[in-house]
Amino acid sequence: MAPWGERLAGVRGVLLDISGVLYDSGAGGGTAIAGSVEAVARLKGSRLKVRFCTNESQKSRAELVGQLRRLGFDISEGEVTAPAPAACQILKERGLRPYLLIHDGVRSEFGQIDTSNPNCVVIADAGESFSYQNMNNAFQVLMELENPVLISLGKGRYYKETSGLMLDVGPYMKALEYACGIKAEVVGKPSPEFFKSALQAIGVEAHQAVMIGDDIVGDVGGAQRCGMRALQVRTGKFRPSDEHHPEVKADGYVDNLAEAVDLLLQHTDK
Amino acid sequence: MAPWGERLAGVRGVLLDISGVLYDSGAGGGTAIAGSVEAVARLKGSRLKVRFCTNESQKSRAELVGQLRRLGFDISEGEVTAPAPAACQILKERGLRPYLLIHDGVRSEFGQIDTSNPNCVVIADAGESFSYQNMNNAFQVLMELENPVLISLGKGRYYKETSGLMLDVGPYMKALEYACGIKAEVVGKPSPEFFKSALQAIGVEAHQAVMIGDDIVGDVGGAQRCGMRALQVRTGKFRPSDEHHPEVKADGYVDNLAEAVDLLLQHTDK
Repeated sequence: MAPWGERLAGVRGVLLDISGVLYDSGAGGGTAIAGSVEAVARLKGSRLKVRFCTNESQKSRAELVGQLRRLGFDISEGEVTAPAPAACQILKERGLRPYLLIHDGVRSEFGQIDTSNPNCVVIADAGESFSYQNMNNAFQVLMELENPVLISLGKGRYYKETSGLMLDVGPYMKALEYACGIKAEVVGKPSPEFFKSALQAIGVEAHQAVMIGDDIVGDVGGAQRCGMRALQVRTGKFRPSDEHHPEVKADGYVDNLAEAVDLLLQHTDK
Repeated sequence: MAPWGERLAGVRGVLLDISGVLYDSGAGGGTAIAGSVEAVARLKGSRLKVRFCTNESQKSRAELVGQLRRLGFDISEGEVTAPAPAACQILKERGLRPYLLIHDGVRSEFGQIDTSNPNCVVIADAGESFSYQNMNNAFQVLMELENPVLISLGKGRYYKETSGLMLDVGPYMKALEYACGIKAEVVGKPSPEFFKSALQAIGVEAHQAVMIGDDIVGDVGGAQRCGMRALQVRTGKFRPSDEHHPEVKADGYVDNLAEAVDLLLQHTDK
């Protein structure tokens, strides 16, 4: 591989995934990943622009940011790009009234959305709310529609909680796609529109930005397809086989966010 | 289409799907489809060989047959080809110890199977047991295995209960396939081995047999790929769009089993 100085040349902005990079979610609010609190502080103290770009769809941004602040992170709601607000904008633009197959923790993000007489389904990381009955309700709504619309907040396969690997929204999205013979519209990573909206928020072009995430496909592959560079951290859901992924090769693999920030501060223009 | 006499020439044996053809399952044991009790009796009184070929995986064969007999059907356990016993044979042959993601009603079929320290997952139509926690357990078992084996009892998209359309095992199989990046082995329709074992049980060649089912893909398409002919009934999960399916064309569409049996008795050799 080329030296880091070459790989990171011209970087002006950084997109940070949250779960698995800043912290591992789990009981009691989860735990910060060692060195990440300081790494975020150093990054925000540098000349690099920083934006948090998450597929978190179990919690509202307010709840997520509150949890991270309690763990010591310097982060505010206005710095976070998350799929629920992006989905709300799409629902309003297209006059869609969703059946919400979501976690109660994110319901407040949809407070202004009309959910009567549904003409689409929105699916998110619903956790325990992925009961058979709720899945069947969503399925029945879709099967009644002439043009079924399924909007999925991300399509992640799984994430890591402190207690172990947990199924994310993607498998349940696939289940409804197969049951109804349809294709979901994904809002969130790896959708290019989603990365672009995060970049717009900090006024940085894709070729000047680097994404840091623990998901080789959703974070690294998705960002690279948008023309960004991307580093994978060996925390969160990272698995050693990711470094030999058949389709995606990160621009670099680092042990954790702290190492990524060390490299960025060392090799990007001061 | 050719006249029925031509389409049914040389038929010596009939495979009958159960759910959606004989009865609609549901609360209180379900309800017989009008004319089906008499149709089965007439068929079994004819010279045609008859075998029931079901993907039912919520109930043991004993429970299923008991329920059908209470509805008036002439049927015994020995006449039913079902996926759970076929799966048990595979588990034994290959020394597999499954984590069972199944309905309690079918658990007795796996009574002789060692389920300690699982080295595979068996998934069936688990209904309400498709909780997030059970799905996550199955996922975690698979992710721990070097060579993950997922055996699915059928891969149906949905079936019809008296209360409406219900998600079948297929969507949940797809969810685990996507989560783990693997491909399931399907035991049951439309697997060719499964149709063949049903034909063997009545000593009839595929070209001499006709399948009667309500599932255009699993029953009709699957049987045709085995060299059988296949009729779709307009009962159960049948939807009008099935008659214009992009890939599968039945050898005939009939209103119900009674009409299918009328045609068979009229047009096959006495």
